Amino acid sequence: MDSRYTNIIKNAYDFAQSQKCKGEIASYIPELANIDPNKFGVHMTKLDGRNFGMGDHLEKFSIQSIAKVLSLTLAYKFVGEKIWERIDVEPSGTKFDSLLLLETYEGIPRNPFVNSGAIVICDILITHLNDAKKEFLEFVRDVSDLPKLTYSDKIADSEKATGYRNVAVCNFIKSFGNIKNEPNVVLDFYFDMCSLEMTCQQLSQTFTFLANGGKKITDGKQIITSSQSKRINALMLTCGFYDESGEFAFRVGLPGKSGVGGGIVALYPNNFAIVVWSPKLNKNGNSARGMLLLEEVTTHSELSIF
Amino acid sequence: MDSRYTNIIKNAYDFAQSQKCKGEIASYIPELANIDPNKFGVHMTKLDGRNFGMGDHLEKFSIQSIAKVLSLTLAYKFVGEKIWERIDVEPSGTKFDSLLLLETYEGIPRNPFVNSGAIVICDILITHLNDAKKEFLEFVRDVSDLPKLTYSDKIADSEKATGYRNVAVCNFIKSFGNIKNEPNVVLDFYFDMCSLEMTCQQLSQTFTFLANGGKKITDGKQIITSSQSKRINALMLTCGFYDESGEFAFRVGLPGKSGVGGGIVALYPNNFAIVVWSPKLNKNGNSARGMLLLEEVTTHSELSIF
Amino acid sequence: MDSRYTNIIKNAYDFAQSQKCKGEIASYIPELANIDPNKFGVHMTKLDGRNFGMGDHLEKFSIQSIAKVLSLTLAYKFVGEKIWERIDVEPSGTKFDSLLLLETYEGIPRNPFVNSGAIVICDILITHLNDAKKEFLEFVRDVSDLPKLTYSDKIADSEKATGYRNVAVCNFIKSFGNIKNEPNVVLDFYFDMCSLEMTCQQLSQTFTFLANGGKKITDGKQIITSSQSKRINALMLTCGFYDESGEFAFRVGLPGKSGVGGGIVALYPNNFAIVVWSPKLNKNGNSARGMLLLEEVTTHSELSIF
Amino acid sequence: MDSRYTNIIKNAYDFAQSQKCKGEIASYIPELANIDPNKFGVHMTKLDGRNFGMGDHLEKFSIQSIAKVLSLTLAYKFVGEKIWERIDVEPSGTKFDSLLLLETYEGIPRNPFVNSGAIVICDILITHLNDAKKEFLEFVRDVSDLPKLTYSDKIADSEKATGYRNVAVCNFIKSFGNIKNEPNVVLDFYFDMCSLEMTCQQLSQTFTFLANGGKKITDGKQIITSSQSKRINALMLTCGFYDESGEFAFRVGLPGKSGVGGGIVALYPNNFAIVVWSPKLNKNGNSARGMLLLEEVTTHSELSIF
Repeated sequence: MDSRYTNIIKNAYDFAQSQKCKGEIASYIPELANIDPNKFGVHMTKLDGRNFGMGDHLEKFSIQSIAKVLSLTLAYKFVGEKIWERIDVEPSGTKFDSLLLLETYEGIPRNPFVNSGAIVICDILITHLNDAKKEFLEFVRDVSDLPKLTYSDKIADSEKATGYRNVAVCNFIKSFGNIKNEPNVVLDFYFDMCSLEMTCQQLSQTFTFLANGGKKITDGKQIITSSQSKRINALMLTCGFYDESGEFAFRVGLPGKSGVGGGIVALYPNNFAIVVWSPKLNKNGNSARGMLLLEEVTTHSELSIF
Repeated sequence: MDSRYTNIIKNAYDFAQSQKCKGEIASYIPELANIDPNKFGVHMTKLDGRNFGMGDHLEKFSIQSIAKVLSLTLAYKFVGEKIWERIDVEPSGTKFDSLLLLETYEGIPRNPFVNSGAIVICDILITHLNDAKKEFLEFVRDVSDLPKLTYSDKIADSEKATGYRNVAVCNFIKSFGNIKNEPNVVLDFYFDMCSLEMTCQQLSQTFTFLANGGKKITDGKQIITSSQSKRINALMLTCGFYDESGEFAFRVGLPGKSGVGGGIVALYPNNFAIVVWSPKLNKNGNSARGMLLLEEVTTHSELSIF
Repeated sequence: MDSRYTNIIKNAYDFAQSQKCKGEIASYIPELANIDPNKFGVHMTKLDGRNFGMGDHLEKFSIQSIAKVLSLTLAYKFVGEKIWERIDVEPSGTKFDSLLLLETYEGIPRNPFVNSGAIVICDILITHLNDAKKEFLEFVRDVSDLPKLTYSDKIADSEKATGYRNVAVCNFIKSFGNIKNEPNVVLDFYFDMCSLEMTCQQLSQTFTFLANGGKKITDGKQIITSSQSKRINALMLTCGFYDESGEFAFRVGLPGKSGVGGGIVALYPNNFAIVVWSPKLNKNGNSARGMLLLEEVTTHSELSIF
Repeated sequence: MDSRYTNIIKNAYDFAQSQKCKGEIASYIPELANIDPNKFGVHMTKLDGRNFGMGDHLEKFSIQSIAKVLSLTLAYKFVGEKIWERIDVEPSGTKFDSLLLLETYEGIPRNPFVNSGAIVICDILITHLNDAKKEFLEFVRDVSDLPKLTYSDKIADSEKATGYRNVAVCNFIKSFGNIKNEPNVVLDFYFDMCSLEMTCQQLSQTFTFLANGGKKITDGKQIITSSQSKRINALMLTCGFYDESGEFAFRVGLPGKSGVGGGIVALYPNNFAIVVWSPKLNKNGNSARGMLLLEEVTTHSELSIF
């Protein structure tokens, strides 16, 4: 990697590391509450294959909601534009697990990245695949070039035991008729889907296809069309950070997606994917130090899409 | 202009012209209700100064809310980042004149492009300038290279006589303390600000500075910093189309801003500004045919930022 | 019964019978959808023991939400005023199964008669009793002098199979910590509780204790204190008809409670209880013909509490 | 007055006086902010004409929203049941000056006692009367037997200068078409209407007609029909205390209406009217000590309507 990017990453990492971050670790998933809050890693993968990482970038963490981008990708690939009859593409203006707008819009989630939308995507996958859990895992293994990747039962079980809010969301949508399978089955897949664990490096390499017009950089395989890839990026920009999506677009200026495990993935189309991991979350549920690092990267490098 | 862009624009114009558009002209401002609904113009200005226009692109129309980008620019230039203490940067998830979220967020508008936010921007300008109405007009004249531009009294008076919703919004914010001047004074400026009229060509040339890092292409004058310019673009992408902002980002993939006069401006950073005008509005208050044209432009040309 | 009341009831019944009622039978509980929509019965019990009934007043129907008054009575008796730490006493201003206000008030239901509130009451009973299902049934048998009363498994099973909205409500409250037991256990009891079946006559006699200062008229047993009895009546007046409570108070002027089985109970304190049953529901989920009959009873007899 | 009522009032007054009340004086109307917070008076008028008062019951205070009952009475008298096409009769579930539900219900206020509803009543009176301000005053003079009663210009002017929220509410309803006259004209009357001042004694005597089937006790004049009188009482019970109406019905069990001047009027139909005044308001905008006194009166005397 050329020294320009090396310097950008290093300076941003050091700056973010030096700042006091008041966030809290996600406590509502017991298994996540045990993570060392000071973990901090970053990894960038350029489309030409060069990589640069720092800190804990080779340590696995729970990618949580970042997996929603991958499940959306698989569903979009299979169902095409008809998918938007069941999910909208608008920012929610509310928290990630809010039920308010579901009631207003009669069971149509605002977008595929709030919990309600991701649950509907799981329902769609169950309907279209023979064994959604298995086939989704195979899909992620393929995109990530990680043939041994598995769900984390510990994380999934921990969420299954305490995820009352998601049980509420799923049954609420079912009551409007926008879930076709049994809520328990849908939720079981949803919790497994969110339990994947990857390192910053693995996740960064995995997401390069979305910066590359839907095509993998390792073997050139076209995962989705270029147009679909752009649209998923647009959704990440407008909806990837719950009620802080505008703030992220404003400060960082890249499409991205966060997870409550403290990970954030961001993309500069035609250029690179970057993943940062720091478990302390701000009040909107996004990694506090991760946001800082990415803002530094784009402010000082003028690497934003705007 | 090279033939590539000529073709893109022409094909998109012809396609959009051929489609049935069910929209309605804005009827709540009496003066706007008299416009010929079949007007249709488009104009693109490349940063190198080349221009291409079609249809009614040399006819003046009321730019309405598109002016909010210019008033934000002037306020941002004067007040800097402190401006965000009084206005947020998040999509609203509601209609352009909704009061719902104002109550939830105690008088802090969700962003500077919903009516409430633009009214607070007017209040800020009145506080910081000696004669806001005059100085804002001079600013727009300077940015647009149109030294004779004036407010349209007919349009402004028409809105002043019927703009009850905006009177409500302004007084509601005042009751939370987030308007510092008298509501009548603030509204008077707000209605004048929205009354500006330009042609597609003029508006397209005016907005090139936001595709050019904040710098005018005609005389190289730096209107705002490059970082501020990027942030205004980010805001246009996430909030420029009211409750259809996600849809526009998804389908068109460019920062943009619409007005109820039927105009839409969109930007491809470092490349071009484009303005389309067609008065029939869809149910979200955005030009129906204009949306179609811009979607065609970016879908077939792969000119989106994603 | 003296001829005055006989006439009042008869005239109101005939009038209501003669009116076209556009309502629909509750269709979301499959077992209820089979009821003959033309059933129509009324029964009044004076505190001195006199009875008057007409139409299908000796036929059993599913009392549904009317049972919420009885479960509240039992919980109030056991827990006293501390019960209001977990449930409010305000009208909801929304539909019976809305989740909107739960989110606003962080899991505290607005009152014990919306579904969310009744579910919290079930949770309280499970915590305080050894076998809530059995002991609640015994309590109702005692109050009603119906020693053989049982839950209707057919109705309960029908709701358990389709009650997604209530599953959502219960898990949503659990996520705020205001349900202490497992949601499945609480819901199982809730659906049983709502499955009771009685005739107009039985239900009318059962509810006389609330018109009688909390004391049964048959054996003089004090079920709850006079003050508690008055407060339950006040709650029925302000909250007994979901988003039509104001309308019922306005038109009928008596404390009352409706159920989606088409039953309504109303009370004139120190005077009588009255039950009407007609399965067609208006858009607010209350018996259309039942509302009409009760309005006639109070308008022409001046029997309202106001 | 017989010693039973004397004792009830005295004991309740002494009890309420002895309690610490944390409330705050209404500060948003500057002229009201100057009142001595320790003022405390109570006055009961029996329908047989007997009176009993204590404390500051002969001192004038600003009756504020209590006047909404009188303006409703006059409008109801003139327009009859058609009045409910423009105002609903349901509790709002929100604060007295909330705009949230207005947006949901497209400009139809939830009831005539929230500000929005009272403003629509003013609009109705302006439409139906030649000189609403003058004729309403004459009406109140007649009902109260106070021929010299006048509006308080000081209070009205104070509200006119600062009542931005009400300006917002009125213009908001106007934007939905449910205000027929000019907002400024309607608001001018609204602020005058709320500026009336009376003593506890005067106000108590004035309201006896609503406990007396709509008939004045002094001269037997029928102000409104008995049925209308009952309906106004029902509205007071369900909607008289904003988002604390359920609580008042629950604790006190009488129809009533509060004002931010610290006054509360309550009625026991066919028996008495009672007025209490203490300026410190609880968080719902109702007199804290007044609520306490009335709860004492009904709890210990069993004088509630339930």
